[in-house]
Amino acid sequence: MARPQRIPRPTVKRLSLYLRELEDLAEHQHETISSKRLGAALGLTDAQVRKDLAYFGQFGHPGVGYRVPELIGQLRKILGTDRNWNAAVVGAGNVGRAIIAYQRFRRKGFDVVAVFDDDPAIIDREIAGHRVRSMSDLARLVRELDIKIGVLTVPAAVAQEVTDRLIAAGVRGILNFAPVRLDVHDAVAVASVDFSVALEQLAFQISLGVTGSLDEKGEE
Amino acid sequence: MARPQRIPRPTVKRLSLYLRELEDLAEHQHETISSKRLGAALGLTDAQVRKDLAYFGQFGHPGVGYRVPELIGQLRKILGTDRNWNAAVVGAGNVGRAIIAYQRFRRKGFDVVAVFDDDPAIIDREIAGHRVRSMSDLARLVRELDIKIGVLTVPAAVAQEVTDRLIAAGVRGILNFAPVRLDVHDAVAVASVDFSVALEQLAFQISLGVTGSLDEKGEE
Repeated sequence: MARPQRIPRPTVKRLSLYLRELEDLAEHQHETISSKRLGAALGLTDAQVRKDLAYFGQFGHPGVGYRVPELIGQLRKILGTDRNWNAAVVGAGNVGRAIIAYQRFRRKGFDVVAVFDDDPAIIDREIAGHRVRSMSDLARLVRELDIKIGVLTVPAAVAQEVTDRLIAAGVRGILNFAPVRLDVHDAVAVASVDFSVALEQLAFQISLGVTGSLDEKGEE
Repeated sequence: MARPQRIPRPTVKRLSLYLRELEDLAEHQHETISSKRLGAALGLTDAQVRKDLAYFGQFGHPGVGYRVPELIGQLRKILGTDRNWNAAVVGAGNVGRAIIAYQRFRRKGFDVVAVFDDDPAIIDREIAGHRVRSMSDLARLVRELDIKIGVLTVPAAVAQEVTDRLIAAGVRGILNFAPVRLDVHDAVAVASVDFSVALEQLAFQISLGVTGSLDEKGEE
């Protein structure tokens, strides 16, 4: 399988859209799909779809298009969703507690294996079955527990400092819930969850009179 | 300003991308931008950009492109981000508490004016300055407080039932944190926040060796 050194970021972002759309097609018993229809469902040209997928190999079949279950399997393998990821939650406040209790993460292959905080009042206490660990144990436990992902649920004011410690400890990616832009020195991957983006999107829909969800089947 | 009856969902979704990109350009003192460069930054063709924006009026200037501050102002007006929205949080669990305490919502023009729960143990108690109200007061308070948005932070099992009650009470949109697909009967707008999508995206980046954030300046 072709794996060039560097895949454009927009392509990486679209891969998850392709995967979601294909999973939806598979659920509705679609066996094949053309690049044109796959693109149309996502507001992209067929040329863009073919170019994006070509970074990873030759998946199309002449006269058939893409075979849906085959492409799903290959994308999942490329995207690492067929394996398990150990994660640590850093910051045991409201968002952190919600994350720890969130069963869906485990079903998706993400295991919260440690919870950290720097508040002496909660260190060593249990939250949803996890003993809260001191930040001073971070570097050691990231190594010992093979933690790949840090879920950052600390206040904005300390988010960068904690990010630097997570990177130094050896995580490969940071899921950021703090409403600040983190500098990860191009050393690790980072994805941010900003609730206000979703709320803004909802306000747009209301203003434009668009009912239902924008994530349902696309139209063009 | 031209306002057709029905704007395609992918266009609505892309409007927030345009707005974000333009705000970023304005921050970096860019005065004008071509549809080609605006599209390239977002992985879209210039034709797509022109087609999307044409739903709302003629914003381009021949030989100049789009004037950045002017287009920002017009998009904000179209998208309703120049006004205030009253919101209710339904479900005072961990996610609900995090939302109530989230200062950024207020800065973006969203005011949490009521908090609801059906647990007698917390009804009438205070959370971050809000008295928790009984679900039986929902319909009356949505009307009295002019609540336009319901933030749904209840367990998945009751999410649909609460959605139906919010719609009947007269909200215009629902921000859904429950990990289920809601049926809003095409009566209101709905946007969902699924933490596991962001985590999955992060795993993709790690698997593909893509560091930094996918939301930074695009490349194509």
